[in-house]
Amino acid sequence: MNVTMALDLGGTKVEAALVREDGSVVEGTRSRAATGAAAAADRGAAERAIEQVVRHCMAAPAWAGVAAAGIGSAGPVDLAAGAVAPINLPSLRGFGIVDFVRGVSGLERVVLRLDGTCIALAESWLGAARGVRNALVMVVSTGVGGGVVSDGRLVAGSGGNAGHIGQLVVDAVEGDAAAATVEGIASGPSTVRWARGRGWGGATGEDLARDYGAGVPVAVDAVRRSARAVGLGLVNAATLLDLEAAVIGGGFSFVAEDYPELVAAAVREHAVNAYAADLKVVRAELGGDAPLIGAAALVHRADLLSR
Amino acid sequence: MNVTMALDLGGTKVEAALVREDGSVVEGTRSRAATGAAAAADRGAAERAIEQVVRHCMAAPAWAGVAAAGIGSAGPVDLAAGAVAPINLPSLRGFGIVDFVRGVSGLERVVLRLDGTCIALAESWLGAARGVRNALVMVVSTGVGGGVVSDGRLVAGSGGNAGHIGQLVVDAVEGDAAAATVEGIASGPSTVRWARGRGWGGATGEDLARDYGAGVPVAVDAVRRSARAVGLGLVNAATLLDLEAAVIGGGFSFVAEDYPELVAAAVREHAVNAYAADLKVVRAELGGDAPLIGAAALVHRADLLSR
Repeated sequence: MNVTMALDLGGTKVEAALVREDGSVVEGTRSRAATGAAAAADRGAAERAIEQVVRHCMAAPAWAGVAAAGIGSAGPVDLAAGAVAPINLPSLRGFGIVDFVRGVSGLERVVLRLDGTCIALAESWLGAARGVRNALVMVVSTGVGGGVVSDGRLVAGSGGNAGHIGQLVVDAVEGDAAAATVEGIASGPSTVRWARGRGWGGATGEDLARDYGAGVPVAVDAVRRSARAVGLGLVNAATLLDLEAAVIGGGFSFVAEDYPELVAAAVREHAVNAYAADLKVVRAELGGDAPLIGAAALVHRADLLSR
Repeated sequence: MNVTMALDLGGTKVEAALVREDGSVVEGTRSRAATGAAAAADRGAAERAIEQVVRHCMAAPAWAGVAAAGIGSAGPVDLAAGAVAPINLPSLRGFGIVDFVRGVSGLERVVLRLDGTCIALAESWLGAARGVRNALVMVVSTGVGGGVVSDGRLVAGSGGNAGHIGQLVVDAVEGDAAAATVEGIASGPSTVRWARGRGWGGATGEDLARDYGAGVPVAVDAVRRSARAVGLGLVNAATLLDLEAAVIGGGFSFVAEDYPELVAAAVREHAVNAYAADLKVVRAELGGDAPLIGAAALVHRADLLSR
């Protein structure tokens, strides 16, 4: 069976595995290495972390059948240059990850995309957006990000940075535009901060989930405010792209069992055009495996990529 | 030379012409018919208007070489059904325009798209977005609309209604969401209304252009407010799709000579991500011919359409 090396580079860890063409991970090939403070300050340390997880894949018997690699990376990325500049890893600013992985692995075909778009590709391949030609897949967590499938293809954009739904402006801008973005309003930390500013005594998303479940008014208001901002971001995406569905994952989306329904209600309430108001909002299906599965899909489902 | 019949159906008129594969109109083939109050109330009258401009094309000697037709229509559209439901033409709600044009013309190949996306296709083919793989083309006039080219393809979306940048929400929603949209803030009528609400004595976009040129403070504020809302809409589009350029046309965009620069400044000021802040903003090049040229491009430049 055709096997691909999948690599996911994030701000706190890098992970790799061999993934079969049915999306299953080859047993024993998955490993991770930290890309924390040391790697953030020292490119050598970051490179060693990446090399370590690649070599772990290369040590597996299944490596003999690997012909290509897919990489999902924290952004921004520069696809034409095969380079990345993860915000949380200053040492890797302008790092030519495609050539680096080619050098370590000996593989010629190495495909790079933004991590958020890899998650979208994974959900399109094997998850909640299966068979949906126009979908936005997003993660609501410490940050808010995502990826877009439009007319049946994963959108890369000019440099490869399409999908940043967290930075859409959805409220009045007063001073700092970031405060009026989907992420600035709806993320876990933003929501906790808002509730605390209104006298709420909790400290975490888990506290908020508990109090939302118990019907504590300020917690209910805070969660609804988060869902409303996500809904407004989706109104804009669905209006611009005539989307059929939005898929929501990420830890903070579990703050409420009915979070997708709250988001869908906000979309229905605020969309001016009927086709956008009809957006389906569902939960992601792949969870923490999505980044690696999506990176593998850059090779296994190249038919879903733009030319 | 390969010739296509191009048809543009709008709320006040329907227009058709034969267009060569270099984008030029065959002399004497262009005609228009009103689709005003009578057609809005009576489907028969609307059908006769469409048939009239099609038959005008069919009477031309060049008709012998026509193998296909492209249609741009006011929305919403339903591409799968080949049908339209122009908001200003209630009589044509659910009208199967593709089959109707097939029936009148005898042409089998008839391609339908939303009018805003046809303008985007025209600017991509022969105008200001030539060779740009990621661009948004918009019209700022009585309404605000547009079309998107993403990764080198014109975006249709689930039903064919992608491109509605005028309905993006870019301000705090208080009550009616439409008031917080790009169109609700930036259109000609919205801008005139805002200025008049602040004591301005003019009545039209032309009056506003004159007073903006003369530096009348309320007129300057009104025009800047319009450009800022357009800029915020473009921030959202450029952030979500990693666009390289935005192309602005439409009568109200001439309210200020520096309107594109005002928009670009708003994008730079409000975009959170650097790749979005770098968006180029330029004027459209094709003007009033864009809808017909874009309709013809549905056939002549089918390589720019999604599969």
